[in-house]
Amino acid sequence: MPLGQIKALCFDVFGTVVDWRSSIIAQLEEFGQKKGLEIDWPAFADDWRSLYQPSMDAVRRGNRAWRPLDTLHRESLITLISRHNITGLLEEEINHLNKAWHRLDPWPDSLEGLTRLRTKYIIATLSNGNISLLVNMAKRAGLPWDAVLGAEPARAYKPQPQCYLRNARFLGLEPSECMLVAAHNDDLAAARTLGFRTAFVCRPSEYGPQQIKNRKAESDWDIVTDSIPGVAEALGC
Amino acid sequence: MPLGQIKALCFDVFGTVVDWRSSIIAQLEEFGQKKGLEIDWPAFADDWRSLYQPSMDAVRRGNRAWRPLDTLHRESLITLISRHNITGLLEEEINHLNKAWHRLDPWPDSLEGLTRLRTKYIIATLSNGNISLLVNMAKRAGLPWDAVLGAEPARAYKPQPQCYLRNARFLGLEPSECMLVAAHNDDLAAARTLGFRTAFVCRPSEYGPQQIKNRKAESDWDIVTDSIPGVAEALGC
Repeated sequence: MPLGQIKALCFDVFGTVVDWRSSIIAQLEEFGQKKGLEIDWPAFADDWRSLYQPSMDAVRRGNRAWRPLDTLHRESLITLISRHNITGLLEEEINHLNKAWHRLDPWPDSLEGLTRLRTKYIIATLSNGNISLLVNMAKRAGLPWDAVLGAEPARAYKPQPQCYLRNARFLGLEPSECMLVAAHNDDLAAARTLGFRTAFVCRPSEYGPQQIKNRKAESDWDIVTDSIPGVAEALGC
Repeated sequence: MPLGQIKALCFDVFGTVVDWRSSIIAQLEEFGQKKGLEIDWPAFADDWRSLYQPSMDAVRRGNRAWRPLDTLHRESLITLISRHNITGLLEEEINHLNKAWHRLDPWPDSLEGLTRLRTKYIIATLSNGNISLLVNMAKRAGLPWDAVLGAEPARAYKPQPQCYLRNARFLGLEPSECMLVAAHNDDLAAARTLGFRTAFVCRPSEYGPQQIKNRKAESDWDIVTDSIPGVAEALGC
């Protein structure tokens, strides 16, 4: 693997660096307890996530003007609140709940891996999350990013090519000098087509015990591992 | 001073956080020695900087499409190389010289001040420098930014209002929740008009011993000090 020319590691965040599902469920359950709501919160969390790709599709297709993920998450949340007949929530309660995505916990290995990689490489987010979501998350969890980038500054959602290409450009790098680190085969496939190097981090419980997709590498990615320290190991950090 | 609602400190970088002039002169002199060139390098550095505002003006006026500062710096450098009849430079030598702006040293107090402020606030760049310039600078100097923002993601150069407003937006904040920290009265004036809080850090030798402008606060900025720890002090960090 001639990986010597890599200068930056660009990270998918939801699922790769942070365990969104457990974090969202925990926050929903806390909210439900406080409000006295009896709801299947794991299912609510999964429904919220299932609206994620469709909500970006309208923007990707150009049917809607650019909107940051916070806005799309909030629209999906309103849909689910209505679907579950939850009434009487205050605006600030909805906003707080929506910002649960700013308060996701990292996988247990993420901080160690990022800290090791940062000694040798630029480490940046390449996430569909908006900047404030990623900055607040990093601040809370101590994620040591050199740059918080992704869909918002690029004004394009992955897997749109412009999202990857503009992010490489922001770093002043060629795609071949960037490695996407992700737990999702389709994200890596889109990046590889554009010249990025690729690292697959297997996160078989991202979607809970019944996860079907992304339980293994579906191509010969440059690195295949099951943790971020595994990426560091492969790159000699 | 009701500064309790501030959530982010947005920093001007050239002159406020880093001593661009000494750093550029040192790198030009090293280059001149290596190439056997006898040139007044402090004057060359000042000329380079004097082309900075005019180079952005064409973009600000909309006469040119958006271009990152690296490109404008390089055009100015080419002008000066020609003006000084320097010939025979390789493309890579010019690029390396242009990236002297990625290798600026902080003022002696900057790291301490940023580290203190970061415990309580989001600290972000709000610079006309492009992202890769700021990321490479931070990586080299150890500047602990939570977010590297500024003109490039906003696609507008200060003091254009959109530059300040879009950066507040990227952080998910109202202008009144952001404080611009800068060594330049005009930068602070533009930000204040838009609702930003303001901190003036006096850097009387930014432009060398003959500096005329910005030797003192020209308005009643929220904070007036002569160092970044002075900002931390004023904010109780």
